[in-house]
Amino acid sequence: MTGTAGLIGVDWGTSNLRVMRIADGGRVLDSRSDSRGAGGLTSDQFHGVLQDVAGDWLAEGLPILCCGMAGARSRWREMAYLPCPADVGDLATAVASPRDAPRVSIVPGVAVYEDDRLQDVVRGEETQVFGLDAPDEALVVGPGTHSKWIRTSQGRMTGFRTFMTGELFAAIRKGTILGADMGEPGVDDDAFAAGVDRALRDPALTAALFSVRVEGLAGRLSAASAADYLSGLLIGAEVAAQTDARDRPVILIGAEVLCRRYAAALARGGFHDVRIADGAAATARGLWRIHEAVSR
Amino acid sequence: MTGTAGLIGVDWGTSNLRVMRIADGGRVLDSRSDSRGAGGLTSDQFHGVLQDVAGDWLAEGLPILCCGMAGARSRWREMAYLPCPADVGDLATAVASPRDAPRVSIVPGVAVYEDDRLQDVVRGEETQVFGLDAPDEALVVGPGTHSKWIRTSQGRMTGFRTFMTGELFAAIRKGTILGADMGEPGVDDDAFAAGVDRALRDPALTAALFSVRVEGLAGRLSAASAADYLSGLLIGAEVAAQTDARDRPVILIGAEVLCRRYAAALARGGFHDVRIADGAAATARGLWRIHEAVSR
Repeated sequence: MTGTAGLIGVDWGTSNLRVMRIADGGRVLDSRSDSRGAGGLTSDQFHGVLQDVAGDWLAEGLPILCCGMAGARSRWREMAYLPCPADVGDLATAVASPRDAPRVSIVPGVAVYEDDRLQDVVRGEETQVFGLDAPDEALVVGPGTHSKWIRTSQGRMTGFRTFMTGELFAAIRKGTILGADMGEPGVDDDAFAAGVDRALRDPALTAALFSVRVEGLAGRLSAASAADYLSGLLIGAEVAAQTDARDRPVILIGAEVLCRRYAAALARGGFHDVRIADGAAATARGLWRIHEAVSR
Repeated sequence: MTGTAGLIGVDWGTSNLRVMRIADGGRVLDSRSDSRGAGGLTSDQFHGVLQDVAGDWLAEGLPILCCGMAGARSRWREMAYLPCPADVGDLATAVASPRDAPRVSIVPGVAVYEDDRLQDVVRGEETQVFGLDAPDEALVVGPGTHSKWIRTSQGRMTGFRTFMTGELFAAIRKGTILGADMGEPGVDDDAFAAGVDRALRDPALTAALFSVRVEGLAGRLSAASAADYLSGLLIGAEVAAQTDARDRPVILIGAEVLCRRYAAALARGGFHDVRIADGAAATARGLWRIHEAVSR
């Protein structure tokens, strides 16, 4: 895309890095990815990796704003979590630079506290949330290894919960009897729906998981479809925990295949307004909006 | 122990075999264990293994009664599950012999059906249940890889649920970020209790699991205590799913260390009558009682 860049945006995840040239309003002009995620770097390595990936862009002299795991403990610079509720202005006030790169600003993560006790944390999703044009009283869902269900109200993040869905799915497949002979997910929508429905009516997840085996014994679930059923159970358990927010519009951000599965599960749970948003575009727009708020 | 044997009892688990000489009333006179569990044997290997382990006992000409996984699909002889409710007489009526060993009788497993659909299964625990002197309206709990919560009423098994607790605990430790740096369980009773309490008040287990990480980030949970907290979450989730049976006496059968942890969790969940029974003795007595009922 053509246009004049006003910001270099950096989305530094645990296992992946993305650097973007961002134009006015948050449009991505150009982007580059690298596998050197924050999870494998020590604090003195970040600046070198960024130079390596986008040294020519950095030379343009634009401001650089970074979200994600670069701000985690033992990474580039530890950024304290900002408490919920939080909005773009709160994030902008709290950005700070690593010692070895004063031109770089890092966006803090956001935390939920209850009775002054830390209850949950995000790093990166807060930037995406502020890049969405979410309706009032929305629910923003970022499916994945650690799925985030974030509630927003009038432009503020008001609370969220993290579900270990993706990581549990992998651990169950690899480390339990349920994974024996299990195929890949994505082949049987009916098995997925059956798993979702089971989780919606059965709050005892560790017992419901055993139904993967029983359904197989009973001849109602083939090995080829078992991964879809298991995925349905785990995603259904997330939806079941959020049914009090059933009347909120939901915005899904993440890989499209996964978002479509969540959309199907949400529909079964009685959510009636579910949209899928482009996560990369939301991150860029969120970085731009935080940058604008910093500059004000 | 001395005495006259009346039965050779065989408890053939997935990963272990135990053969017992059993006296009148179900007392164990002598027992031998072997690592050739049913999980690793094909149907034509069972008889040879039994001869190998206890050929001298078999030569005494006593009846031989076998419970557990020898009756599972693709093992010694597949025994159809008996539907709940079931009592000792029902099990006795259904025992049958493998083709290659007419002197051996195998006890069937028991199943829960709902609307004619298979819902859950046990193999082995039914024999233990009938070896207990359970009070009326009891709850028999067999903690382990797949924990079984079995309801009994006036000498009958009336229903049960299987929780994949032990297997999930191992898979989460080995396959997720929570397991990094995690110590062994059994060192911090307070962390265990905190995990139980969290599970009792928070029905969203896959979100509660993330609290292992958050508690660590907040400095409230050390790496050394994290395994106890995780164990508390998973065992607490079992207890939470059974609180409607809070007024029943509970009998725990299994490894004593594990039973003590369950007893602590049950107490936190409001169960006030919890006893620990000897599982091996219960199996022997159960086999004896089924044998008696067969002989009547």
